[in-house]
Amino acid sequence: MRGIEPRESAIEEAVSYARELESRLEPLDRLDPGDPFVYVSVGGGELGDLVLTAAKRSLGGRSAGIVTAAIDRYQGFPAQDSADLSAVVDMRDGDALESAISGFVRDPRSVRHAVFLEVEAVDTARVFEMATRRGYNVVSTPYGPLVGMDRLASKLLIERLGVPAVEWRYAGSLEELRAAAGELGFPIIVKPVMTSSGHGTSIVEGEGGLDAAYEHAMRHARGRGDEVIVERYLPELRTEGVELTQLVLRHFDEDGRIRTTVLAVGHSRPGAVYVESWFPSGVPAELEREGAEHAAKVANALGGLGLYAVEQFVVGGRVYTSEFANRPHDTGMVTRWALAEDEGSLHLKATMGLVVPAPRAAHPGSFCAARVVLAPDDVAPGAPVTSWSPNAAYSLIRRRGWMGDVWFFGKPTAYPGRRMGLAAACSRSLRAARARAASIASAAEGSISYGALHGEN
Amino acid sequence: MRGIEPRESAIEEAVSYARELESRLEPLDRLDPGDPFVYVSVGGGELGDLVLTAAKRSLGGRSAGIVTAAIDRYQGFPAQDSADLSAVVDMRDGDALESAISGFVRDPRSVRHAVFLEVEAVDTARVFEMATRRGYNVVSTPYGPLVGMDRLASKLLIERLGVPAVEWRYAGSLEELRAAAGELGFPIIVKPVMTSSGHGTSIVEGEGGLDAAYEHAMRHARGRGDEVIVERYLPELRTEGVELTQLVLRHFDEDGRIRTTVLAVGHSRPGAVYVESWFPSGVPAELEREGAEHAAKVANALGGLGLYAVEQFVVGGRVYTSEFANRPHDTGMVTRWALAEDEGSLHLKATMGLVVPAPRAAHPGSFCAARVVLAPDDVAPGAPVTSWSPNAAYSLIRRRGWMGDVWFFGKPTAYPGRRMGLAAACSRSLRAARARAASIASAAEGSISYGALHGEN
Repeated sequence: MRGIEPRESAIEEAVSYARELESRLEPLDRLDPGDPFVYVSVGGGELGDLVLTAAKRSLGGRSAGIVTAAIDRYQGFPAQDSADLSAVVDMRDGDALESAISGFVRDPRSVRHAVFLEVEAVDTARVFEMATRRGYNVVSTPYGPLVGMDRLASKLLIERLGVPAVEWRYAGSLEELRAAAGELGFPIIVKPVMTSSGHGTSIVEGEGGLDAAYEHAMRHARGRGDEVIVERYLPELRTEGVELTQLVLRHFDEDGRIRTTVLAVGHSRPGAVYVESWFPSGVPAELEREGAEHAAKVANALGGLGLYAVEQFVVGGRVYTSEFANRPHDTGMVTRWALAEDEGSLHLKATMGLVVPAPRAAHPGSFCAARVVLAPDDVAPGAPVTSWSPNAAYSLIRRRGWMGDVWFFGKPTAYPGRRMGLAAACSRSLRAARARAASIASAAEGSISYGALHGEN
Repeated sequence: MRGIEPRESAIEEAVSYARELESRLEPLDRLDPGDPFVYVSVGGGELGDLVLTAAKRSLGGRSAGIVTAAIDRYQGFPAQDSADLSAVVDMRDGDALESAISGFVRDPRSVRHAVFLEVEAVDTARVFEMATRRGYNVVSTPYGPLVGMDRLASKLLIERLGVPAVEWRYAGSLEELRAAAGELGFPIIVKPVMTSSGHGTSIVEGEGGLDAAYEHAMRHARGRGDEVIVERYLPELRTEGVELTQLVLRHFDEDGRIRTTVLAVGHSRPGAVYVESWFPSGVPAELEREGAEHAAKVANALGGLGLYAVEQFVVGGRVYTSEFANRPHDTGMVTRWALAEDEGSLHLKATMGLVVPAPRAAHPGSFCAARVVLAPDDVAPGAPVTSWSPNAAYSLIRRRGWMGDVWFFGKPTAYPGRRMGLAAACSRSLRAARARAASIASAAEGSISYGALHGEN
C-alpha cells in the first residue's frame, strides 16, 4: 500500500466492515471451563501483561474458562509468566506468527477467542489475512490495528470524519517533503508513516534540516520507509499546550447494545516517546468533552469492541486530533492507579463481549500521575538486569508519606532508555503528583543494576 | 499436644523465638533474577492467589527475581494458574508436603525464600520441623500458624497478654464440657480446639444441647477432636454487636525497623463462616483504636513479618479479642476494593522483607463491602462448574450505576455452600454498600451452572 488512494479505499472497506461486523456481534453469553475462551496477546510487554493478568485476577483464569496466551520475540517477556501459554517468535515473520497463533486457537471458527495486537512490530498484513480469510477474531476489527499503525491512513480517516486536526501533508520522497514544507511553512514535524512509540520523528526548523529529518524517518520506519507525514508544528504546544490520550472503550451495555465510553488522560512527552501521564487530564471540562466527541467519532468509524487510544493536543482553546492506536496505550497505564479498573482489564472485558460497568476514579478529587522508570542511556544494549531493589522506591514513598507506588515490569534485559517500570503518585495537586512520581521513578531507576555495565553477573 | 500446660510452654518458646528471630531479620536488600527469591504458598485458594498474583502484578515476577509456587490438594486450584510452579498433594501428608516444598526450595539455607501457610489443613507439625530443624523460612514465624490454628493456645496467649476476651473454659471431654457450661452458664459457644473457617461450632442454649455440640465439634475437628473451647455467648452480639478483623501487618519501615500497621475490617457471619465484610469498619474510632492496640499486642508477641488477622467483637462499648490467624484473612479480601493495595500484596511484601508504605483507602469517604458468592446447598459434592456468565453481575452493576465488581475465583468444582467468588460494592452508606454487594453476589450465583445438577457437561 503506497500513497493516498489505496488508503482511502482501505478506510472505505474498514468502515463498511465495521457495520457488517457489528450486526453480528453479541454479548458473551457464558464462559465454559470445558470449552474455554482463548485470549491471545500478540506482543507481551507491560500492556499485554495488564490485559492478560485481568483474566486471572477478576475472571478466574483457566479453571473458569479463559485460557490466556502471549507471544513476543524474547524469552522472559513481561506477560510470559502471567499467561497460561506462550510462544517466542519473531512477530514480523508471518509464518512463525501464524503458526504460534494457530497453535493457541486451532479452529478459529469453532473456538471462542480474541487476538489482540499489543504492538505494531507485527506482520499486520498476515494478521489481517488470518482475520478476513480464516476467521480469526482480531480485535477491535482486522482493520483497526492496520489503520491505526499507518499515520497516513489515520490522518485520512480523521479528515474524512471532519475531526479537527493540525494541517498536514503526505510526502513520498524528499522532493515531496520539500514541497510540503514550502506549503506549510516552518517549523514542521516529520514522521514516518509507520513506526510505533514516536520513533523516527523530527521537528524541523528550516530548509536545512529536511534531509536529516527524512533520513531519520527512513531509518526508524517500519515497512516502507520512504513515506512521511509532515505536520505544521504549533510552537505554543510546548509552552501552553497539553497532550491528551482519549481512551475510547467500545463495549456492550446491559441491554446488549454497543456503547462508547471515553476517558481522557493527560500527558507530556518532551521528546516523542512516553514519559509521564496523569488522570484526570486537568484540561477544562468543555475542551475535554469536545475532544472525547472527536475521539469517539474515530473509534466508532472503525468499530468493533475494545479500546482505541486517540491522541490529541489542546492549544489555544482548540482540540486537535493527531493519531490513534487500536489497543491499550502507554499513557493509559496510569489507570492502574487512577481507576478502580485499569485499561488492560477494560480492554479484556470489552473485547470478550462482556458488559462493562462505568469506569470509576479510584481517588476522586485527586490526580494520579505515572512516570516511566528508564534504563540509563549508557547501558549496554542487551545488558541483563542483575539486581534491583524495590525498597529504594518504597522507602522514599514511606518516608515522605506519599500515596505512591512502583510497578516493575520484569524485563530481563535493557537497552539505553528502555522502559523498565512505572512509578505513580496521587495527590490533590497535579503538580505534586507529577513531581512525586518523578522522584519515585528516579529512586527506582537508581536501584537497578545492569550486567554488562557492572559486571556483577 | 494436649491440655493447657504444653500449650503454655509452646507460647513461651514462641515468644522467645520471635525475639531471637527479629534480632536476625533484615530488610530485603535486593532481588536478583539470576538467583530468585522463591515464594511458596501452602494452600492455593483465593487468598494464596491474591498473594502470589501481587508478585507478578507489582514486582515483575520471575524475570524480575521472584519465583512463585503454590501447593493445594486438587488440580485447577485458584492460585495454580497464577504461580510459576505448582504441586498437587495432600497437604496433611507430611512427607508429600515436605517433598513438594523442598522441590521448590532445594537449599533453604542458601536460597532466599518464604513459605506461607494459606490454610490450616496442613501437617503444621511437619512444617514447624522443616522451619526449626532444616532452615525453612516459615512466615511470620514457625510458631505463628501453629498457635493461631489452635484455639486453646490462642486463648492462652491472649490471656497472658492481658488482652480482654470473653470468659472461656477448656474442656477435654464431655464431662469437662458439662462442668465448664455449669461455670459459665448458658448460652455458650462450643468450638473444637482446631478447625478452620468456623466449622464445628455450636451455640448451646441449655444442658440438653451439650452432647450434640460436643459431637459436632469432634466431627469437624482437625487433628485430635476431643478438645473443645467453651465461651460465654453474649446474646447482645447478635442484636447490637459488630465483629472486627484487625489486619495487623508487621513489616519493615524506611529505617530498617519492624513496624506494626493495623487496619480494621468489619464483618458479619450469621453462622460461623464468612459471609460479608466491609472497610472501614464503621465502629467508633476509639473502640477501633482500642481493638487495634489489643490486636497489635497479639501479633507483636508472636512476631516476625507479615499479616496476623485478629478476630474481635465489639459489644456494649467493649472490645473482646477471640482468636487469630497468621495469614491474610477471608474477611480481609474486601481490601481488594477498599484499599489501594490488597491484603495479599501487603502480606507478600512484608514477608519478603520489603518496606511497606502506609496502606491507603481506595475510596476515601466510602464504605466498600464484600459478599461471598456461594454454590447452592443442593449442588452435588464435587459437581463441576460447567459454565458461568460474568455479564449477569456486570449488567446489574451497570444498570443500577453502582460502584461494584465481582471476582470469580475459578474453582473447577463445587460442594454445597462452597465459596466460588466474591462480590463487592462501595458507597457512602455502609447499608447501601452491603445491600448492593449482596445483590451482585446473588446475580453472580444465579449465573453459575453445575454439572451434576444440570447434566449439561
